Amino acid sequence: MDETNSTKETSSLKANPQSGDWMDSFLEKIEKKDNKFLLSFTSTNHPADIAEVLEKLDIDDAFYVFKLCDYEQQSEILVEFDEDLQADLISRLNMKEISPIVENLETDDVTNLISEIPKAKAEEILNSLDREDSSQIRKQLNFREYTAGRLMTTEFASAYETDTVRKAIIKLRRVAKETDDIYLLYVTDAENHLKGFIKLKDLFLAPLNQKASRLVKEEVFSIHYDTDQEEVARIFRKYDLVSAAVVDDLDRIIGRITVDDILDIVQEEASEDILRMGGVSEEERLNTSIWDSIRRRLTWLVINLGTAVIAASTVALFQDTIQSFVLLASLMPIVAGMGGNAGTQSITVVVRNIATGDLSQSNWTVGFRKEGIIGLINGLTIGAITGLAVFFYTGKLALAIVIFLAMLANLIVAALVGACIPMLLKVVGIDPAIASSIFVTTTTDVFGFFCFLGLATLFLQYLV
Amino acid sequence: MDETNSTKETSSLKANPQSGDWMDSFLEKIEKKDNKFLLSFTSTNHPADIAEVLEKLDIDDAFYVFKLCDYEQQSEILVEFDEDLQADLISRLNMKEISPIVENLETDDVTNLISEIPKAKAEEILNSLDREDSSQIRKQLNFREYTAGRLMTTEFASAYETDTVRKAIIKLRRVAKETDDIYLLYVTDAENHLKGFIKLKDLFLAPLNQKASRLVKEEVFSIHYDTDQEEVARIFRKYDLVSAAVVDDLDRIIGRITVDDILDIVQEEASEDILRMGGVSEEERLNTSIWDSIRRRLTWLVINLGTAVIAASTVALFQDTIQSFVLLASLMPIVAGMGGNAGTQSITVVVRNIATGDLSQSNWTVGFRKEGIIGLINGLTIGAITGLAVFFYTGKLALAIVIFLAMLANLIVAALVGACIPMLLKVVGIDPAIASSIFVTTTTDVFGFFCFLGLATLFLQYLV
Repeated sequence: MDETNSTKETSSLKANPQSGDWMDSFLEKIEKKDNKFLLSFTSTNHPADIAEVLEKLDIDDAFYVFKLCDYEQQSEILVEFDEDLQADLISRLNMKEISPIVENLETDDVTNLISEIPKAKAEEILNSLDREDSSQIRKQLNFREYTAGRLMTTEFASAYETDTVRKAIIKLRRVAKETDDIYLLYVTDAENHLKGFIKLKDLFLAPLNQKASRLVKEEVFSIHYDTDQEEVARIFRKYDLVSAAVVDDLDRIIGRITVDDILDIVQEEASEDILRMGGVSEEERLNTSIWDSIRRRLTWLVINLGTAVIAASTVALFQDTIQSFVLLASLMPIVAGMGGNAGTQSITVVVRNIATGDLSQSNWTVGFRKEGIIGLINGLTIGAITGLAVFFYTGKLALAIVIFLAMLANLIVAALVGACIPMLLKVVGIDPAIASSIFVTTTTDVFGFFCFLGLATLFLQYLV
Repeated sequence: MDETNSTKETSSLKANPQSGDWMDSFLEKIEKKDNKFLLSFTSTNHPADIAEVLEKLDIDDAFYVFKLCDYEQQSEILVEFDEDLQADLISRLNMKEISPIVENLETDDVTNLISEIPKAKAEEILNSLDREDSSQIRKQLNFREYTAGRLMTTEFASAYETDTVRKAIIKLRRVAKETDDIYLLYVTDAENHLKGFIKLKDLFLAPLNQKASRLVKEEVFSIHYDTDQEEVARIFRKYDLVSAAVVDDLDRIIGRITVDDILDIVQEEASEDILRMGGVSEEERLNTSIWDSIRRRLTWLVINLGTAVIAASTVALFQDTIQSFVLLASLMPIVAGMGGNAGTQSITVVVRNIATGDLSQSNWTVGFRKEGIIGLINGLTIGAITGLAVFFYTGKLALAIVIFLAMLANLIVAALVGACIPMLLKVVGIDPAIASSIFVTTTTDVFGFFCFLGLATLFLQYLV
């Protein structure tokens, strides 16, 4: 007993937010205002780990620990938080406390923060910065959200192509002192037009008197400030970039994007797609409030309810047929449901291929034809299995044929609709991930019920 | 007419695989064996762009263009291909052609390649390499797939902590000449135990006579070789890393992982989750053969068919009730379907939170409670809407109450099962993304039908 307790005590300096026990004992330290412990905690852990712990606390407790840190730590922790928590914390600080934190942030982080907090406070913060910084950030706020212009930082190292390696290194040193993640030196002409880049490691290999232009890599990866962040991520992935220059309309370098931001974007965009395909409209994390979760999900459920009513009305058309042969009521959900499953497979593949850029308007017919063939063959197979099972179970050949035909038709329709809808949504500018499934399952439900019950009505004399 | 043609001609050197026209004209060049054009094509485009074009061609055509490139280009293009195409191309080359390509690859790429091709050919390639390289690769092949040991390259720059900055730079130069993506210099003690790292930019700032140990960052991010690649990606994301050292059991550095591989992993793992949740069992891309696609999807559909039969049998239990009041047949899919939708929302959120590491066994009850409350409130809302609509449409209060109660119960069950199943699957070692939805929708179908038709049977006298 005593031993476990002491182990717990000694191990507790290291952040371990996954353990309920650890979090309980940490909370106790806050309640006791054990500042000595809390200060050693903040000084021994990485800002990302501290942030992870604080995110799981009440805002009051998080704020208490946050305030204990020095300004540099505060800014490092702040950038790790999600936007809501950032805005929350900032609203609790006065300008004298905010200024030194903001001064430690890189421009993209300041821009992000400013765009999330109330206008009056944002204006106050901007006015507190020195004029150059604030005009820089105001400029960046004018770029569209989710574009390269918003992602970039304006701290970068660059040299002219006519500079010697020695001079380039001097320029690099000036920036390197204040900026953490420098991997490339950008090379421009005298008017700042981007000409290429030099990897830092190549600077070590070059004679000091060589011209910078001699070291420049042939490939220039420049990204226009208005490029969508998904496209930026695609470029980073494709060319294995660590850092890329952002240019203005005249191809002059105005900033750079680093890969750590891209990693977050890839993860977030994928999460967004997964959640949207599952009928959850927005980023919903474990710490999203229950009311937000309910509001977001309920909207989607109500829309679904509307489509379910359409499917139910289709069934209602055939009440007389069902009344004469009630077994149809048990079999009809199989046809509709299998269509839904097959349709979901198609949209999943198509939506994913659109997201990764493999499928676009130009090669869309390839995808459409492929889905059609898959639908035909899967329809024949699943239809045959179902038909045989029904025949063995009921002994009614007509019923077996009806369910075979309905299943075949529904799986072909499911595949074709599943291939078309995401592409159509994409063309009209709706995210295919969010709305595809509702169109497809409504189609497969309505068409499945209609086909199966319609055929059954036609062949009713052979069924009963 | 003439003008478009000439535009097409001049623009055709730049790879544009998204355009059908461009691909057609490129294909024509191959058929004509226009090697002059093809060589200018390969020399003006980035290997990643060349690979993207070749991936869309028949293997014979792709091989023809591939063979025109020099060995360095061939290896740069090869690493961009997916594994099937890599293996295919290698099988068409003889050892004299393979050796120079393999020598240009980094160790992780060779290991990847070797593990994908037939054993005899793999053995032949290994034997053709110099002894040090081949023993290195054999060692790496012993690490488990999808772990840090497989991801790492063994080319890295390191220095002893007792080295001066000058000596460290000399050591860095030696590696930098042959290795492309060097961003950090690792620092070890005399026995190669990892002590930390130095960013290249900091080497430029330091006096040449300073000890390397003085520049070392306090945080040491070392990754054990047996760490799962998803966990590796999480570490990179959390700490914004560009490169991380891989260590053996004794904490000695044996390799390093760079962020470009991590970017691919994050993308692939997300794709895998999305596809699995959509009932597509494996990575399925646009160029997956139709037969592979069918096989993969059909398996899942057959499993679904089995569960659909269970749901249908539930309905069959209540045939007498349906016969007496056939409207139930139209309404029952609404109850089952809405349960399925709500359950899908729950598993989507839970599976995603498990994947990102936000949800684990320790804080699982938080997720469970939250889903339960959401299920209750959404159930009350959707149940009430449906009940009211049924009452206004049919004038039958008893029917309205039955559908309200069934909907409420089914949405609560959907939420709770949706929260439990992914976690249970995770605990027993099955990927929650692949199997959760089938358990949840089966439950909501069976329970939805049972609840609604069961209640209807109890209250039948008030319904008809």
